[in-house]
Amino acid sequence: GVAPAVHAQAAIRWRLASSFPKSLDTIFGAAEVFSKAVKEMSGGKFEVSVHAAGELMPAFGVVDGVQNGTVEMAHTAPYYFFGKNEAFAIGGAIPFGMNSRQLTAWIVDGNGGKLMREFYAKYSIVNFLGGNTGAQMGGWFRKEIKSPADIKGLKFRIGGFAGKVIERMGGVPQNIPGGEIYQALEKGTIDAAEWIGPYDDQKLGFNKVAPFYYYPGWWEGSLNLEFYVNQKALNGLSAENKAIVQAAAYEAHVTTQARYDARNPGALKQLVAAKTKVLPFPQSVLDASFQASMDLYGDLEKSNPDWKKIYDDYRNFQRDEILWFRFAEGRFDSFMSSKKL
Amino acid sequence: GVAPAVHAQAAIRWRLASSFPKSLDTIFGAAEVFSKAVKEMSGGKFEVSVHAAGELMPAFGVVDGVQNGTVEMAHTAPYYFFGKNEAFAIGGAIPFGMNSRQLTAWIVDGNGGKLMREFYAKYSIVNFLGGNTGAQMGGWFRKEIKSPADIKGLKFRIGGFAGKVIERMGGVPQNIPGGEIYQALEKGTIDAAEWIGPYDDQKLGFNKVAPFYYYPGWWEGSLNLEFYVNQKALNGLSAENKAIVQAAAYEAHVTTQARYDARNPGALKQLVAAKTKVLPFPQSVLDASFQASMDLYGDLEKSNPDWKKIYDDYRNFQRDEILWFRFAEGRFDSFMSSKKL
Repeated sequence: GVAPAVHAQAAIRWRLASSFPKSLDTIFGAAEVFSKAVKEMSGGKFEVSVHAAGELMPAFGVVDGVQNGTVEMAHTAPYYFFGKNEAFAIGGAIPFGMNSRQLTAWIVDGNGGKLMREFYAKYSIVNFLGGNTGAQMGGWFRKEIKSPADIKGLKFRIGGFAGKVIERMGGVPQNIPGGEIYQALEKGTIDAAEWIGPYDDQKLGFNKVAPFYYYPGWWEGSLNLEFYVNQKALNGLSAENKAIVQAAAYEAHVTTQARYDARNPGALKQLVAAKTKVLPFPQSVLDASFQASMDLYGDLEKSNPDWKKIYDDYRNFQRDEILWFRFAEGRFDSFMSSKKL
Repeated sequence: GVAPAVHAQAAIRWRLASSFPKSLDTIFGAAEVFSKAVKEMSGGKFEVSVHAAGELMPAFGVVDGVQNGTVEMAHTAPYYFFGKNEAFAIGGAIPFGMNSRQLTAWIVDGNGGKLMREFYAKYSIVNFLGGNTGAQMGGWFRKEIKSPADIKGLKFRIGGFAGKVIERMGGVPQNIPGGEIYQALEKGTIDAAEWIGPYDDQKLGFNKVAPFYYYPGWWEGSLNLEFYVNQKALNGLSAENKAIVQAAAYEAHVTTQARYDARNPGALKQLVAAKTKVLPFPQSVLDASFQASMDLYGDLEKSNPDWKKIYDDYRNFQRDEILWFRFAEGRFDSFMSSKKL
């Protein structure tokens, strides 16, 4: 007989702090997919426990937590941390940024992966792909938005970096956790709130207190979520486990995008059946938002060398992607949307 | 001191037969990404050697090879095997089918994964995602295509299942390996040839012998490549190695789509600089092709119960996806393509 395996290596137990509540099965679920894959691939010798926002640290405390080594890793939306450095947002979502496939391509096969990792090294973080929501909706409004003038004075719950553009347009960005948005909208403490898309939004019932549901969420043409791993913790892993972390992140990335894409259509149909008024932002509002975003980026090019270095590459890549997507991809999609199947 | 690890489990050596030549770094590379990830995650205890088309068996022999257990796995384009059963094509690409994100969503979070695995079980195959090319180009034509009448008699090199639609439109589909297309176009043995997209096409130099480059490739709004694993070989793996196979496939899936998306734009720009005439198929040609495809699917619903079972679900899913993609995703993309960055 063959002797049973003797494992010289101690079991590894990591903690992952999520910036999201358990109720968001889509986005919180990305960390669960990751954790399950790591456990299975390692035969239970490497386990990552997943903790919802607030359980170990506040939702917006996870970068500090990973940097300090309080937890080995986090799952979050990079733009939450624009206050530390605006460049965080580039790898997550910036207004009028890249769509899901374009952004993943920049990170995986363009210079994005290298540039963002150089940047994250300052925070002792190594980042991995952690899912994408796809293009988000523009959110829930108590009143119709007919022109850029309607943004002035608008108290708008909007997450992260995009608030800087809303401010430039005369709006008043509000930072309110997901669980408190409904009441704020109902009471009129805020005039509007964006969250994610039909599937996640429907669960929070916003359509009951704000009937106008606008699209697109121009500040999140896609939102790339990320896993942040403490550099020292990652260095301490065997080569096998490092590869396992990477592949598990890819599994979470595909699964999360697929869940959004598969679950949003049914939720949108139900919202429409419940009399939600689904409206496009007027062209004038999109144009003014685009201009305000480009002005902001122009200022950041001057004030933030990290932004300049990363965004210059991002923008060149995006320009080429948009050109290419107009051909096969864009024409195919537009033809299909003109046909009855 | 701690005793060194003793591995009771013998090393695992698998062979993977690809349907593609090594020169296609994009599509052939998917199997290399898979193999590298498996080796790294297992610390070299599980190795998958990757063999180009023809090395162990012909490109189109890989389903037989996996079914018979000649090789443990393959990497291929499912529609090559429509002659065995048209339902193979559904999980790969069918004319006017789903785009890349939609198809991945159907497989990962819709019923597609379950339905296709039930189908593949008849061939002792378990399938895994293996990359997507995104929407392909419509290929290279020696003469302009102005109406559906120009398809009649057209000798068109086109891969797999889509030839059945070309036939219905009066064209003459040709099955020619990639390496022989250039010469056939040059000599005029064929009138047109589709391959993949700018990056792969450019390497073969088709623009020198057929100046008109049409879009979109309506028969491949996306092409989902797949890894096929012999059921018995998979069953023989430990739970750890089964999970490693799955995660490595996800890694290959993301990496391959990213490579196509990142590399196509530059190649398209170079082709245009080399005087390639990039043209959209006329609306009348797309309309006629769409109708011929729907007629074919109507016939298959009656003649092939596997097709009916799988395609009914696929089509319902696709209908909902197209509806949803018109909102946030479609409006965002169309706005971005109207702006100068």
